[in-house]
Amino acid sequence: MKPIKVGLLGVGTVGAGTWHVLQRNQEEIRRRAGRGIEVTMVAARNLERARRIVGEAVEVVGDPFAVVNHPEIDIVVELIGGYELARDLVLQAIANGKHVVTANKALLALHGNEIFEAAQAKGVMVAFEAAVAGGVPIIKALREGLSANRIESVAGIINGTTNFILSEMRDKGLDFATVLKQAQELGYAEADPTFDIEGVDAAHKLTIMAAIAFGIPMQFARSHIEGISQLQAVDIRYAEQLGYRIKLLGITRRTVVDGAEGIELRVHPTLIPAARLIANVEGAMNAVLVKADAVGTTLYYGKGAGAEPTASAVIADLVDVTRLATVDPYQRVPHLAFQPAELADLPILPMEEIRTAYYLRVYVQDQLGVMADLTRILAEAGISIDAVLQKEPGEKARTDIVIITHQTREKYVNAAIAKIEALSTVVAKVIRIRLESFS
Amino acid sequence: MKPIKVGLLGVGTVGAGTWHVLQRNQEEIRRRAGRGIEVTMVAARNLERARRIVGEAVEVVGDPFAVVNHPEIDIVVELIGGYELARDLVLQAIANGKHVVTANKALLALHGNEIFEAAQAKGVMVAFEAAVAGGVPIIKALREGLSANRIESVAGIINGTTNFILSEMRDKGLDFATVLKQAQELGYAEADPTFDIEGVDAAHKLTIMAAIAFGIPMQFARSHIEGISQLQAVDIRYAEQLGYRIKLLGITRRTVVDGAEGIELRVHPTLIPAARLIANVEGAMNAVLVKADAVGTTLYYGKGAGAEPTASAVIADLVDVTRLATVDPYQRVPHLAFQPAELADLPILPMEEIRTAYYLRVYVQDQLGVMADLTRILAEAGISIDAVLQKEPGEKARTDIVIITHQTREKYVNAAIAKIEALSTVVAKVIRIRLESFS
Repeated sequence: MKPIKVGLLGVGTVGAGTWHVLQRNQEEIRRRAGRGIEVTMVAARNLERARRIVGEAVEVVGDPFAVVNHPEIDIVVELIGGYELARDLVLQAIANGKHVVTANKALLALHGNEIFEAAQAKGVMVAFEAAVAGGVPIIKALREGLSANRIESVAGIINGTTNFILSEMRDKGLDFATVLKQAQELGYAEADPTFDIEGVDAAHKLTIMAAIAFGIPMQFARSHIEGISQLQAVDIRYAEQLGYRIKLLGITRRTVVDGAEGIELRVHPTLIPAARLIANVEGAMNAVLVKADAVGTTLYYGKGAGAEPTASAVIADLVDVTRLATVDPYQRVPHLAFQPAELADLPILPMEEIRTAYYLRVYVQDQLGVMADLTRILAEAGISIDAVLQKEPGEKARTDIVIITHQTREKYVNAAIAKIEALSTVVAKVIRIRLESFS
Repeated sequence: MKPIKVGLLGVGTVGAGTWHVLQRNQEEIRRRAGRGIEVTMVAARNLERARRIVGEAVEVVGDPFAVVNHPEIDIVVELIGGYELARDLVLQAIANGKHVVTANKALLALHGNEIFEAAQAKGVMVAFEAAVAGGVPIIKALREGLSANRIESVAGIINGTTNFILSEMRDKGLDFATVLKQAQELGYAEADPTFDIEGVDAAHKLTIMAAIAFGIPMQFARSHIEGISQLQAVDIRYAEQLGYRIKLLGITRRTVVDGAEGIELRVHPTLIPAARLIANVEGAMNAVLVKADAVGTTLYYGKGAGAEPTASAVIADLVDVTRLATVDPYQRVPHLAFQPAELADLPILPMEEIRTAYYLRVYVQDQLGVMADLTRILAEAGISIDAVLQKEPGEKARTDIVIITHQTREKYVNAAIAKIEALSTVVAKVIRIRLESFS
């Protein structure tokens, strides 16, 4: 059987990694796929750099539409990033009847519904394993490996930059700004790190996982996003003393509120008991924890970024697409795991309605009755307390009181915090960090 | 599209679990598969029990061949276990042109080559996700998720019974026999626990993973198998003091010996640095660590046994088989990950040739020069020492010296041990436990 022909859009880090792995493991991949997978055309902004990478035998062009419109290309691999040009290219490739492989989480989180609808209408595949958790085959696990299950929740460390920063803050007791600077020097954080540190990248990936876990459309705009830039070293230390680690988690979960089911979709710093496997995922690694009704809890761990880990996922998709290039669409795994006509319309819940536990740090003027006030306010709100950490008074007899609550609804906690902050003995805003026990 | 028809062989723990999950999640599964999956016929030894489980609408028979030979059955699910009757049934189902889903690791480890050859010739699928690590989709990860990679090694905690026993021995400082008895009372170990505690079950699963990781035939007979029944509590304690946990691992790895590549295939108790994620897999849980050239290290974790976790994998296979029931065989993932004509003939290496590090416990008469003798023997064998733990002399001035070596070939260690045991100051057999650092 003659090789399938692939057009590569972008020869940056992941594009070059994809090229190199395809060359190095050519034999291994052909032995698996039963058919060669050949990059015959490449589009790049820097033509010289691209030629240095792919050599003379491959056509290198500056216009990515020349690839997308080329009649001999079977599969387009979109690795240019961004979501305007990428959207146009992917839609054009689909219109031309080509299959698409992409690592572009932003594109899918924002325009996935439109893209999958077009692909469905045209009977082509859009594969995106590389869009979430790099080389970890989490899309395949959620869409195929767990297809027997009613998935209950997905929670993941899905941004390596922030996990690296949090690991360093904890290990070395440093503050956020110092570690971010080091991470930038080491290449673990970009010059403009906003998308990573503010949780936007994690929210893109979480949006995709929520869609395939629950069979709902992509709803990035409805995700709740908090990053780690406001996180203080002191809270990492207190959490540690209470037996917890703080991770930036993307969490999506079915929740029943007042008898109706909805979906939580949220990215924020989260306390996790230190004994949990996912609490021990350090440095730039990724891990995704899935809870489902039949299988229980499963966890998937590995490198979430980098040239070759991401290339691993891109090429796995190429192999899958190569196998199924000509079968009837109904014989393929649906893009969003569920058949297009079978998507659910579960609403994304407002944050006020989510249920979780909380870490509250209250900075108080140490005087008789402070603790009694706090516990009374929480009790009146129906919030029960799991643990308390009270520090020795410091300057001006002020001190931190840390309270870990049991699960409750966020709106009850917010109301209680407003009352706490109104106390004359409370001298700063209450620090509130959500807590998941994963028990 | 009308439902696909499934015949179930066996309604024991996993069979009943499969039935229940298929009923409970019927809608969820149909929304994914795009087609109903319907069990229409069941074979069971205990007809009454089977009827109580599946009700009146399903035909229940005593003769499993009646299912395998029934013209209307599309997929046979083999859950009766064992490898004689099961082999005949699976081969007959294949001969009848039916697809097969099985959770039977012993069957595949022993007769997989014959079964896959028959399935290949007939153009049917034999799916076996449930045969390894229960509901964890590790077969899918190895065969499809990592298809871009040259896989270097696979190491797994793939027997929940032994991991439960080892966790208890460490947590409570108890000896093997005591914990085994408790495990039997709790239902974590069977009345005859031999297959689990002697590592045979793990070796079945490892044989399957090695085949799909490296594209080699099943070679169970060539696997090296050591269980945990000889493991002493004192070694778990010493390992802990040195920063290690002891786990029963199945390990398979490419190794180059004297310029030629071969495969290590071995199950044995193994020291692992306590900081590694896999060292923290506790109780009856499973985890598999895969090292591959592009993706690096990935880990897959979850419940390795039980009715519903195993059913989760059986049904995921049913969904896959349902989708691809009528496509051309070359459009499916090959049984052993590689195309049948592309299997490799890498030899399984004799244990003497494997490379790993070692924990050696030497019980000595404490007198001047003992340590010098030990270090001299190891140095002469070209084995370097990573750490030493020497205990205070106990009764009759005897004591344990524990040595952790760096990586070396097993034959060098065995030769050194023979020399150590010949020393007049060494008063017992040397305890040797292999060590993997996974760094």
